Amino acid sequence: MTDSDLCFLSAVELAGRIRSGDLSAREAMEAHLRRIEAVNPAVNAIITLAADTALAQARAADERQARGEPLPVLHGLPVAHKDLEETAGIRTTFGSPIFRDYIPPTSSLVVERLQAAGAITIGKTNTPEFGAGSQTFNPIFGATRNPYDLGRTCGGSSGGAAAALAAGMIPLADGSDMGGSLRNPASFCNVAGFRPSPGRVPTWPNRMAWSPLGVNGPMARSVADLALMMQAIAGPDDRSPIGIEELASRFAAPLDRDFRGVRIAWTAGLGLPFEPEVLAVTERQRTTFESLGCIVEAAEPVMDEADRIFKGLRAWHFEVSLRDAYASMKDQLKDTIIWNIEQGQRLTAADLGRLELDRTNLYHRVRKFLTRYDFFVLPTVQVLPFDVTVPYPASIAGAPMATYIDWMKSCYYISTLGLPALSVPAGFSVGGLPVGLQIVGRHHDDFGVLQLGHAFEAATGFGRARPALAPAVR
Amino acid sequence: MTDSDLCFLSAVELAGRIRSGDLSAREAMEAHLRRIEAVNPAVNAIITLAADTALAQARAADERQARGEPLPVLHGLPVAHKDLEETAGIRTTFGSPIFRDYIPPTSSLVVERLQAAGAITIGKTNTPEFGAGSQTFNPIFGATRNPYDLGRTCGGSSGGAAAALAAGMIPLADGSDMGGSLRNPASFCNVAGFRPSPGRVPTWPNRMAWSPLGVNGPMARSVADLALMMQAIAGPDDRSPIGIEELASRFAAPLDRDFRGVRIAWTAGLGLPFEPEVLAVTERQRTTFESLGCIVEAAEPVMDEADRIFKGLRAWHFEVSLRDAYASMKDQLKDTIIWNIEQGQRLTAADLGRLELDRTNLYHRVRKFLTRYDFFVLPTVQVLPFDVTVPYPASIAGAPMATYIDWMKSCYYISTLGLPALSVPAGFSVGGLPVGLQIVGRHHDDFGVLQLGHAFEAATGFGRARPALAPAVR
Repeated sequence: MTDSDLCFLSAVELAGRIRSGDLSAREAMEAHLRRIEAVNPAVNAIITLAADTALAQARAADERQARGEPLPVLHGLPVAHKDLEETAGIRTTFGSPIFRDYIPPTSSLVVERLQAAGAITIGKTNTPEFGAGSQTFNPIFGATRNPYDLGRTCGGSSGGAAAALAAGMIPLADGSDMGGSLRNPASFCNVAGFRPSPGRVPTWPNRMAWSPLGVNGPMARSVADLALMMQAIAGPDDRSPIGIEELASRFAAPLDRDFRGVRIAWTAGLGLPFEPEVLAVTERQRTTFESLGCIVEAAEPVMDEADRIFKGLRAWHFEVSLRDAYASMKDQLKDTIIWNIEQGQRLTAADLGRLELDRTNLYHRVRKFLTRYDFFVLPTVQVLPFDVTVPYPASIAGAPMATYIDWMKSCYYISTLGLPALSVPAGFSVGGLPVGLQIVGRHHDDFGVLQLGHAFEAATGFGRARPALAPAVR
Repeated sequence: MTDSDLCFLSAVELAGRIRSGDLSAREAMEAHLRRIEAVNPAVNAIITLAADTALAQARAADERQARGEPLPVLHGLPVAHKDLEETAGIRTTFGSPIFRDYIPPTSSLVVERLQAAGAITIGKTNTPEFGAGSQTFNPIFGATRNPYDLGRTCGGSSGGAAAALAAGMIPLADGSDMGGSLRNPASFCNVAGFRPSPGRVPTWPNRMAWSPLGVNGPMARSVADLALMMQAIAGPDDRSPIGIEELASRFAAPLDRDFRGVRIAWTAGLGLPFEPEVLAVTERQRTTFESLGCIVEAAEPVMDEADRIFKGLRAWHFEVSLRDAYASMKDQLKDTIIWNIEQGQRLTAADLGRLELDRTNLYHRVRKFLTRYDFFVLPTVQVLPFDVTVPYPASIAGAPMATYIDWMKSCYYISTLGLPALSVPAGFSVGGLPVGLQIVGRHHDDFGVLQLGHAFEAATGFGRARPALAPAVR
């Protein structure tokens, strides 16, 4: 098997081969390291590599297996962590010059869980400065490029993760998502990204432990791989007071499910502008859901106020998280973050109260909508992957974008309510650029969302198909 | 059996007798209605009575039983709802003149669940205006009096509930607790009150659906009765996005547990002033925990900043919940509420951010403390039940109280972190006034807290003992 063949195996398949002894963890790691060496210079997805420790740990994993020890669920699988996640002993920059040389003493909970489940840390993936914006570039590492077109962005903020997966550099990656950061880059890179319910993957450290806005989650090249990873990273931990009391083993249940009669709201796009090429791709998939036996109806909830709610809460989070940096190192923050922080500074508690009242009303409106439908489906991103030198789209289908995050509404409207949402590959534009479809489920129905994504993926074969991967990363 | 004997049966016992056919639901209801007629005029705990519908429903319950229908867990038990809970068709005032004649079209979730579990609504229990403060009086119904000394307060804000339970008017009652309102009146009235983890008993309607500060919970004369009631009111409901995904049947597990070797931090009182008579009663119970085999050590976490965090978040909640009333009917709000709202108006979002950062740090400090101890125990209230004409204690053990809520710190420090907390009867002062002990558990260990309370109660017999009940309510 060539490195490329091996490195495009699904995580489930790769884990099975290592477990069966077909392949050692060391061989798997070496193949992935060679793959990174070959393709990462063109993509710039992995921005810190831990090759020596990864190889040592792979050898140790093989030794444990040779001794007949019980093997955890991700035994021997290479994994890379978003550079917003603290990794003990490995540089963690948060994409900011302020943390250019920061080496954390401890790992964040998602990293700790992946490692405890047998995954081996191969390095860190690129992210925008403090994860702000869905275009992955920062002053330390530059931009991460889209493996399907190196002149275009991979999206973000878990952009390095998505690009590394798409280019076969890793089989699994963690990401995080406040306004779409697990879904947007998955859509742009023809991979799968899952935003779980808040608390499903407990977040620690977390400066505002009760906040449901930002979540950790899995990214992979297939939904079955996402479910495998959820078996390692889901489940309660008292370091997060909002952790959901359902064990990670929930995600070991069968993904296959009969979707006949399941009701799906086919959402025109929540009143948002979309590039026609995006809609052309996603509209073709309506019949796929019908072929699964779903009852598909055109319907959507009104969610307009989600814009104001999300922007207000997000500005508040930026102010709270970065107030110390703003006070003492403002010159080292990018303009868009300064602008966000200053928006947050102008908010009163009464303003936040209004947002909480409105968010509650919106939650109930969408909840009632979802008594009539089991899921709703819409395009993940409003645009195709755009020029990597452009920080954000200035307009969509003729509609000007007021801020650097306005083009992310199709994702952040969902974040506002904490509903589980999956982006799965839905095909390619005429020019060969990936397009993702977003499946949104009822409150806490994380597993149902994965099941539907799995059925969709099985019916389409997208994700596994990589027709237009850029020559340098084939 | 006399009415008094019947009306002081535990809910578990009463439910068993109805289920076995020893007693009809109608007989039980009639006895409780007679008891209310006899003792409520002196206590003023039940402020709206639904006698006719209660009797009709009791007869209907008996008919269902006669037809051999399956009987739900609270079949035939009279229950009263706090007047902060909306009850379809039954006046709900929130203790405020603004809602003097309000009859809600729908019931709140806790009411709906109690009724669905077979409990029969007998009426509403008194509460301070909008639940503000732990002394139960309001301009519509006046004050509720303590059944152990009619010249003293029953506490609050679930004061009507606690007094009605103590006087044998009902076997079960719901309450709610932001700053101690399930625990304080339980302590003052020799009954049991349990503040569950936020989301354990989902709260709906709730203007700020994600807020973990205020919770619903059960009140009863024994911990076993609390657990019985939790079987009806706990468990997720998607009307609350923070609902805990653990089924109500969790509370049907055996309460009996071997506590040998369980580590208990015997908390001197979190640096707060206590009346010496309170401490004299609670200190005697240290040996009770030792007699259960617990390892009891003097230890406590530093929680000083909980005061600032709680007061800030509470002021914000008041401003958000009552801003419309403040704008248009300020003259109908009590001074202390106006003061709270105006505090909330002065807060910035940055102030709230600081409180969230501090709350997170405090959560982790107490979490680490609770890795060394399974529970911590402290007196529920800092004072004995005081004169019913006094709105709040002006000082405690010589320490002046700056505001009308400062005397509630021993309860609201715990609220700040959302830890499960139970108040169980711990004995009586020399003058015969009830004193409660507060058992605080680890994050989400609601059932463990009930188990320890049950063991404590079995060892002491308090709660069942009513030596000093006022003559008018014996």
